[in-house]
Amino acid sequence: MTIALCPGSFDPPTNGHVDVVERASRHFDRVIVAVLRNPAKTALLDPEERVSLLKAALAHVPHVEVESYEGLLVDLAARRGAGVIVKGLRSTSDTAFELQMATINASLLPTTDTLFIVSSPEWSFVSSSMVKEVARYGGDVGRFVPAPVAEALARRFAADSE
Amino acid sequence: MTIALCPGSFDPPTNGHVDVVERASRHFDRVIVAVLRNPAKTALLDPEERVSLLKAALAHVPHVEVESYEGLLVDLAARRGAGVIVKGLRSTSDTAFELQMATINASLLPTTDTLFIVSSPEWSFVSSSMVKEVARYGGDVGRFVPAPVAEALARRFAADSE
Amino acid sequence: MTIALCPGSFDPPTNGHVDVVERASRHFDRVIVAVLRNPAKTALLDPEERVSLLKAALAHVPHVEVESYEGLLVDLAARRGAGVIVKGLRSTSDTAFELQMATINASLLPTTDTLFIVSSPEWSFVSSSMVKEVARYGGDVGRFVPAPVAEALARRFAADSE
Amino acid sequence: MTIALCPGSFDPPTNGHVDVVERASRHFDRVIVAVLRNPAKTALLDPEERVSLLKAALAHVPHVEVESYEGLLVDLAARRGAGVIVKGLRSTSDTAFELQMATINASLLPTTDTLFIVSSPEWSFVSSSMVKEVARYGGDVGRFVPAPVAEALARRFAADSE
Amino acid sequence: MTIALCPGSFDPPTNGHVDVVERASRHFDRVIVAVLRNPAKTALLDPEERVSLLKAALAHVPHVEVESYEGLLVDLAARRGAGVIVKGLRSTSDTAFELQMATINASLLPTTDTLFIVSSPEWSFVSSSMVKEVARYGGDVGRFVPAPVAEALARRFAADSE
Amino acid sequence: MTIALCPGSFDPPTNGHVDVVERASRHFDRVIVAVLRNPAKTALLDPEERVSLLKAALAHVPHVEVESYEGLLVDLAARRGAGVIVKGLRSTSDTAFELQMATINASLLPTTDTLFIVSSPEWSFVSSSMVKEVARYGGDVGRFVPAPVAEALARRFAADSE
Repeated sequence: MTIALCPGSFDPPTNGHVDVVERASRHFDRVIVAVLRNPAKTALLDPEERVSLLKAALAHVPHVEVESYEGLLVDLAARRGAGVIVKGLRSTSDTAFELQMATINASLLPTTDTLFIVSSPEWSFVSSSMVKEVARYGGDVGRFVPAPVAEALARRFAADSE
Repeated sequence: MTIALCPGSFDPPTNGHVDVVERASRHFDRVIVAVLRNPAKTALLDPEERVSLLKAALAHVPHVEVESYEGLLVDLAARRGAGVIVKGLRSTSDTAFELQMATINASLLPTTDTLFIVSSPEWSFVSSSMVKEVARYGGDVGRFVPAPVAEALARRFAADSE
Repeated sequence: MTIALCPGSFDPPTNGHVDVVERASRHFDRVIVAVLRNPAKTALLDPEERVSLLKAALAHVPHVEVESYEGLLVDLAARRGAGVIVKGLRSTSDTAFELQMATINASLLPTTDTLFIVSSPEWSFVSSSMVKEVARYGGDVGRFVPAPVAEALARRFAADSE
Repeated sequence: MTIALCPGSFDPPTNGHVDVVERASRHFDRVIVAVLRNPAKTALLDPEERVSLLKAALAHVPHVEVESYEGLLVDLAARRGAGVIVKGLRSTSDTAFELQMATINASLLPTTDTLFIVSSPEWSFVSSSMVKEVARYGGDVGRFVPAPVAEALARRFAADSE
Repeated sequence: MTIALCPGSFDPPTNGHVDVVERASRHFDRVIVAVLRNPAKTALLDPEERVSLLKAALAHVPHVEVESYEGLLVDLAARRGAGVIVKGLRSTSDTAFELQMATINASLLPTTDTLFIVSSPEWSFVSSSMVKEVARYGGDVGRFVPAPVAEALARRFAADSE
Repeated sequence: MTIALCPGSFDPPTNGHVDVVERASRHFDRVIVAVLRNPAKTALLDPEERVSLLKAALAHVPHVEVESYEGLLVDLAARRGAGVIVKGLRSTSDTAFELQMATINASLLPTTDTLFIVSSPEWSFVSSSMVKEVARYGGDVGRFVPAPVAEALARRFAADSE
């Protein structure tokens, strides 16, 4: 049985993230989506909300769990017995940085490999930071993110501007 | 059960190829290494020799088979029931081209995904074409390829220069 | 009045090419699609067929002409009075090479500028060479190219295999 | 009539920016240079100063206007009836990011296209952030920016060090 | 006699940095390792500690000095009479940014050239920021940095978590 | 004493090549420009002509020699006692390929390092293949190459078209 870990900030989750988890779930026995709690970076949404939005957006995907984590990804992989880390790779990804992280992680935990999966072209240009920027100024992000995420962003920015 | 397809020209196979197949074999139930017979390109080694060198180099890796193929990779994947195509990604790969091929293949056969795996840093700069270039002029390629490959290249270029 | 030149090999024309010409036609007064006759490279389709396929595929686009040319692009631009050269830029383009050509051309003909236009994400992974490769082995390219192009490719490869 | 929008932070304007606007002005009927007021980022020069420096630096360029804006670029493009957004592309640009923004903007406002124009090689390595860094430590930026900008930077950093 | 300047933040120094200085020391008569004191960026280690760690890590390398500097690199190069600036280039470097800085510096001080040297593959994925991230969460960085650096990081993060 | 090797095809030599050799000659005691005789690739100019054009173009540069070579670059470096291999790096170079070759060469001959030097922005877009393409169709290459090279190209293409 191979367990796959799908890590990320998911601030917020996008249709591209959902696409990657759906694909991972076809090929691995269990998929753990792991939301990074990064005390050093200010996130728009808190980790609990990101976990709960991912659960809603991934309810239709079989054998998927969502949790949050802090610290090193390889420590989580070891604790959960994950054989692979699955990450999306987009044509606009910083590939050099992704390769560097994958190599560092393989050096720290040689039994776990990072696998990159290419998202569908329609999501290849959708990133969390772009979505935040568009939503912040009232742009329609309904085509880029699952419905509950669009609602959460609308609530969040409405609260800001009050 | 997930079957993984590792396609390539393998002209010749390198330590980097062996590294990728070893990693794939840890995470998937069966790994089919598929050597492209490309009538349009002149290869240094003929497909039979590449298959036999890969078999020798991969003898220690469990549940791996080696075969050659012609035509579209997605047709082979469909015939073999492969859920994933596994390819190595090196810091010197043409990432844009690899993403393009993965996307075209996903468009032609949506049930199969391409997964990219990062090879170890020590092989990150080793490519088949570099190895051929070095071997052609009598350089020592013993550190870059499995022993039977080094011998086959030495025989091949000795024959050329006779 | 600004005349735009859309140069390329178009061997064969793809939906991505049509997308770029449609966009150029919205912003410029006249668009000249220029098919390179390159005696140094063997093309799959001869220039006359590429011109005629482009004419069919672009029949619905206003103020567009299609012609073939040989020699330097800047000489054609000067002869036709083209103020701009419009080229598609895809996430899988060789951007460095495109910038280099644009700079050389600006150096040879400073009054004409190269403008890059981004194709729609659905065509961002479609290139002429990929289409040829898929069609050669009987894959379905109907989603990547205009209908007359798909037919021409089918005829061409059927003739080859007879 | 096609209206072109040239957006940016212009903190500060450089000779590369002036080069791009000069070229845009040759091919489009009206050029609106739009300075982003970004409350989230601390700029060195305030938006009014950037607008006024651009007006001085572009006084010789026909049918150009300069204004500042806040919010989404596509909202400004819609309000001004801009058919195209013109941006400079340098060999040191983050091309992947630029393609991503262009694609997001095309998705939000399909009637407006982003066109990339290549700046002259002599400005291809000049960016606002490099200029700021050099000026901050007393380096001579007179060759990289219009004269009024060099003076404004000198005043600004002299004030800081008092 | 050619003097080489090896500038950087070295926050912290890594085995990759040591590799580059060792190589520079073989080809140039004198090597000055210059640690940037950047008041604008918060560093993990203060400049004095970085200088002293580099001195310890480079004690075995002939004709090397270590110092810290503030301001423009070209001003330091001029003061020290350095004919070349030597920097490491890794497959995960931001090459475009490095070329831009080298070109700006050549423009400011034409008699001094930047030379890039490729680090060994085993260090090609090791960056100061990765090392900091791993050490912050208690990961073992002993294989990526010289021993005194590993100890300094351990002390530093132990102090933080007290 | 450090000997620098500047290898290349130089088919034809360009102003960018001259710029790199001029810079190398400032920092190293002796510079050997080495023209590759590659029997596998058809060159436009034969190696003797390339050597003689380089000698003419570099007559003003002190302590430079020009020769041709065949086989592995590292074998030449060992024979000549070259401590460094100096190559130009342009913003349009295939950096990944250059890093790969430098790493392979360091693996074959660890005492010699490859150093990359950035050419001036005005030559950053000039490559031998672009120059050939422009000259083939009668474009003016006088601004991109030394005068004797422009004449040699004109003679060569005039002969072709007779």
